[in-house]
Formats: sequence, structure tokens, C-alpha cells
Amino acid sequence: MGEQTNPWECINGKNIPTTIELDPIIYKYTSPACRILDIGCANGKVSLPLALHGYSVTGVDVNTEVLSMAKSSSKSQNCSQIPLFVKGNATTLPFPDASFDVAVMQAFLTTVVSKDDRARIIREACRVLKPQGHLYIADFGQTWHSKIYRERYINDLPVTKEEGSIVAYDEVTGEVAYIAHHFTEKELVLLLIENGFEVEYFKNDEFVTRTGKRVNGFIIVATKL
Amino acid sequence: MGEQTNPWECINGKNIPTTIELDPIIYKYTSPACRILDIGCANGKVSLPLALHGYSVTGVDVNTEVLSMAKSSSKSQNCSQIPLFVKGNATTLPFPDASFDVAVMQAFLTTVVSKDDRARIIREACRVLKPQGHLYIADFGQTWHSKIYRERYINDLPVTKEEGSIVAYDEVTGEVAYIAHHFTEKELVLLLIENGFEVEYFKNDEFVTRTGKRVNGFIIVATKL
Repeated sequence: MGEQTNPWECINGKNIPTTIELDPIIYKYTSPACRILDIGCANGKVSLPLALHGYSVTGVDVNTEVLSMAKSSSKSQNCSQIPLFVKGNATTLPFPDASFDVAVMQAFLTTVVSKDDRARIIREACRVLKPQGHLYIADFGQTWHSKIYRERYINDLPVTKEEGSIVAYDEVTGEVAYIAHHFTEKELVLLLIENGFEVEYFKNDEFVTRTGKRVNGFIIVATKL
Repeated sequence: MGEQTNPWECINGKNIPTTIELDPIIYKYTSPACRILDIGCANGKVSLPLALHGYSVTGVDVNTEVLSMAKSSSKSQNCSQIPLFVKGNATTLPFPDASFDVAVMQAFLTTVVSKDDRARIIREACRVLKPQGHLYIADFGQTWHSKIYRERYINDLPVTKEEGSIVAYDEVTGEVAYIAHHFTEKELVLLLIENGFEVEYFKNDEFVTRTGKRVNGFIIVATKL
């Protein structure tokens, strides 16, 4: 993002990890007529179930290929409202102020390596939300009790330059595919409260990765102040 | 501890907080004949249920008054083995090497303000445990999503000098009664693995304090290497 190349723009669509399930808590913060924005929507794994629930959903992603996959999937489903999938960057969303009631970031912030970009992204989500709108975040937590993750945080530090980040390598070429960050509670909470939100709901969770590893996770609902 | 006065040595026994319940996971790591050491046993809230389960329990604490309370309570209970309550400091335990199968620290490390003392305490627990013995820890986690705790971590920093620590004031005199530390997962895990243990079991939990506030907690079982 910013001036650097965003690896997520050109990654093969089917290689984009989409492992976390949508937590039902989100339905406590949605009303029938509400407009939902799915930020970093990838292949529509979150947008589609929300659309099947009858909500008006817009998905945004930088990757053209996953947007095509999302569009194909949504046509094959029996959605009362087909989601709108839009190409765009989360740091500069292509929507007017106060356009949405709820924004969703499901395992999206983990892919953003720049702290400045993370702050920009939260401020953009805040901008496009209506007053008292809600931001739902599900993302990975630092998992120091796991020997595997602990060693990756330490060993990958020369590449990632950020504690709690890990390097994912391309299975074929062996090159760095992308960097993923695992957050501390403090990092995520301060990111929200310093960029226009207060924490409304918070839950420690445990996610299972594509490779079957257990990892800490957070489910957060924040309210635009 | 160390050269400083330990406020827990002279605090009024009934003012010692004992809020966390023993997690049943501990019984996966105990066998009928096992010897259990309860480090920072206070009034015996953990020692007594373990003794009622038939285990041979020794409780150790620096506070003479709570040890008396623990002794009185144990006499009024129908324990098959009455726990032994011993005055002692967790940094220099009055027991030989390899004396116990299981050691318990229930909301104890939170009261230890010195990082060096925390390391000494874990090494002492390791020393008195038998090979492959288990250390059960239940303690408080930093709770940044709570506005109340977040503000206390920041506002109390000039007094505590450690992020994540909070000051408890005496209700009558208004003076500092004690400092309590809330841990990050990284802090607790590194404390264990740098002082002779590996993490065997780990759970994020939520505790309720004496005043009804919800706070993050960890339940950990570590194995002596």
C-alpha cells in the first residue's frame, strides 16, 4: 500500500487465505435495512452469508481476481440482494462519508504491514460509517504460548521488522508470499480508540488456520464516536 | 521482596484478595498420591479444596495472619489430609529440591512487582518440583479493551513504573495498599520458558474481580523440563 507494491493486488485469487468464520455477534449490531461494507472482502466469504441474510452488502478489495470469484459465487447463490463488489484500496475507500451502518474487517488488518496504513484504514472505515455506526473486526492475536508461533515471531523479525509478524512463503517458489501480523490486544484497541472508535464488544477467541494450527484471535465490535 | 519491604507480609489478612476460582484443568495433572505446593496460599482458598480432594497439600505464604486463618479453616473442614501451612518467601522456598509433583500459583505473580523476583520465584518453583512436575498458574491479563483498566494502566504508570500495572489504594487511609500487575501472554510465557519450563496447557479466560469488574485472565499449566 502507499508507495510500495501491495502483494495482495496481484496474488493468485485462490491463494488468499479466508479461514475465520463470521461470529454471530455481528447480528446483534445489524438491522434489516442496514448497509454493510466488507473491507478486504476477498472471494466474498463474509459478504455472501451477509447477503443471504438479506442485508445490502458492498465488498471492496484491491485484487481483481478475487472480486471476479466473489461475483461468480454470488450469482450462483440465491441472494435476495446480490452484493456489490468494488475494486478499491482500504486506505482511500471509493465511497462518500456516512454511507454504511456496519463495516466488517475479517482477517484483513493482519495483511496490512504498515502501521500508518492501519491507522489510515481505520480512519477511512470511520469516515464511511454513519454516526454511531459499528466496525466489526475479527483478527489474529499473538500466540506466544505456541512454540511454533513464538519461534516464528522471533526468527522472522529480521524480515518483518515488527514483533508478532510472520512470513508466509510461496509453496512453489519458496519466496516470501506475504507478511501477516498477529496483534496484541493493546495494539488493536489503541488503533481503534486513536482513530475515532470506542470498543463496544470484545472477545478472546481461538481460530484454526488453513494448516490446522490453533491461534489466538479477537472478535471486536467498535462504535464510531 | 528482596531488600525492600514486602507489603504482603504485614497486610491485614482479610484484605488479601482471593477472587479466582481454581480451574478444573488442574485435576488432569494430579494423581492420587501427588504432593502439591500452593505458593502464595493466603487464607487457603486453593489449598483447602485440593486437600478435600485428598491430595497432600503444603501452602506457603509470607503473611503470618493469613496462615493462621488458613490453619483455622482447615481444622473446621473434613479433610482426609490436613494441609501443612508454612511461612516462607517464594523467592527462597523452605523446601528441598524435587519435593513436589505440582505447584500452584493462583493470582500470586500479579502481586510481585519486581521482574527479577518473578524470575527467581519461577526458578524456585522449578527447583522444588520433581522432574516433569507441573506448575499451574492462574493470573490476570492486560485488559486494554476495558476503558477503566486502560486508563488505570496509563494513569498509574508514574507510580507503578511498569505498563499493565495498577495501584490499589487503602479504602480507609487512601494510601497505596499494593500494586498489582496484569500480564501479557508474552510476559508470562517468556517468564516460564526462560526459567526452566515449557507451556503444556494455555487458556484465555475472563475473571471477575472483588468489585465485579471483568478482566482478562490466563490459565496455564507448564511442565518442568
